[in-house]
Amino acid sequence: MGVVKVYGVAASPYVATVLVCLEEAGAAYELVPVDMAAREQKSQHHLARNPFGKIPAFEDEEVTLFESRAIQRYVLRKYNRTDLLREGNLEESAMVDVWREVEAHHYEPAISHIVRECVIKPMIGGGTRDQAIVDENVEKLKKVLEVYEKRLSDSVYLAGDFISVADLNHFPYTYFLMTTEYATLVESCTNVKAWWERLLVRPSVRKVAAMLAPLVT
Amino acid sequence: MGVVKVYGVAASPYVATVLVCLEEAGAAYELVPVDMAAREQKSQHHLARNPFGKIPAFEDEEVTLFESRAIQRYVLRKYNRTDLLREGNLEESAMVDVWREVEAHHYEPAISHIVRECVIKPMIGGGTRDQAIVDENVEKLKKVLEVYEKRLSDSVYLAGDFISVADLNHFPYTYFLMTTEYATLVESCTNVKAWWERLLVRPSVRKVAAMLAPLVT
Repeated sequence: MGVVKVYGVAASPYVATVLVCLEEAGAAYELVPVDMAAREQKSQHHLARNPFGKIPAFEDEEVTLFESRAIQRYVLRKYNRTDLLREGNLEESAMVDVWREVEAHHYEPAISHIVRECVIKPMIGGGTRDQAIVDENVEKLKKVLEVYEKRLSDSVYLAGDFISVADLNHFPYTYFLMTTEYATLVESCTNVKAWWERLLVRPSVRKVAAMLAPLVT
Repeated sequence: MGVVKVYGVAASPYVATVLVCLEEAGAAYELVPVDMAAREQKSQHHLARNPFGKIPAFEDEEVTLFESRAIQRYVLRKYNRTDLLREGNLEESAMVDVWREVEAHHYEPAISHIVRECVIKPMIGGGTRDQAIVDENVEKLKKVLEVYEKRLSDSVYLAGDFISVADLNHFPYTYFLMTTEYATLVESCTNVKAWWERLLVRPSVRKVAAMLAPLVT
């Protein structure tokens, strides 16, 4: 199989989750830079790949996709890593879907604001931190983590006693959070902390973490 | 197969999308009311079904699920309506996933604010409309609909020339929008309007629309 292309920058958590899946799949891929400072994501040639002018976009020969979670599912299916989706098992795949949705609609809406204010803004020279936004979302994230702490007392990973894409999707934003003083939010939850450490030692995660590390040090 | 239970109220767009899938599947189901005014969704017995205290929750014998989009996929798989997911076709299923994500991350974030201010608040006695929120989100929705109008000039439905859950997910919020003066946003887009009319005549959609109609008249 040929080399697939991911358009974007690894610093985008949405791009990074796609890269983790490609690494899990052992796929040959090329990360094609999109110059965000020059607003290349709004150029006509990028809009042809992603009509909303966002990253990532993805190309595999004749197939062009956008939306990171859709790209992930395509990659895992194409490269026979549907074990990370648990497809073939009705109940387990449903639990993977439940916790993918939890990540998308509960975890990310809280953590993304904290990471944007504390990590992304300084990284791209995008202004000063708005502490009120941080404080508001720290409270939201605390409540989400309470649910995670309870869930991870019942199972090793979020969807069950097996790793899935639902776990992997938490990596980029959590990685950035852990470089801030708000790492304590994770560290104070015993089960969440142990789960995070299990994720961190995976080769796919280590590989993408190595791409992110220079951005925050 | 037995009767599955959906906990919630049809007025919730998230509950309604699950009901549309159950209707498409021809499944026997019971809608178990959750008294939102009495905050029953935050009660211990509901939190056991949905730890975030939201609706819907779903029970099928030993399986308990939450998050509407995860429940949808489970229902369509269980009742052999995976044609609405296009599973089995790598590229088509990816396009379904792309447009499900577009609905979740572009369409809904705009339209939900308009519907909340113009329909939900009056319905539940939740205060007066905040026109500034409406105006801001009308502008966002216009931009999203521009993308849809172009997409629907290339294909009959969002993911291709076949109906899928990606289309069906647009039904509840759009149904409510069409009862307001902002129906013109849809009516002024020729292709979007034709697509919406194709959705409206589906038996599953007509059935759930009949449950919503008394709420807004």
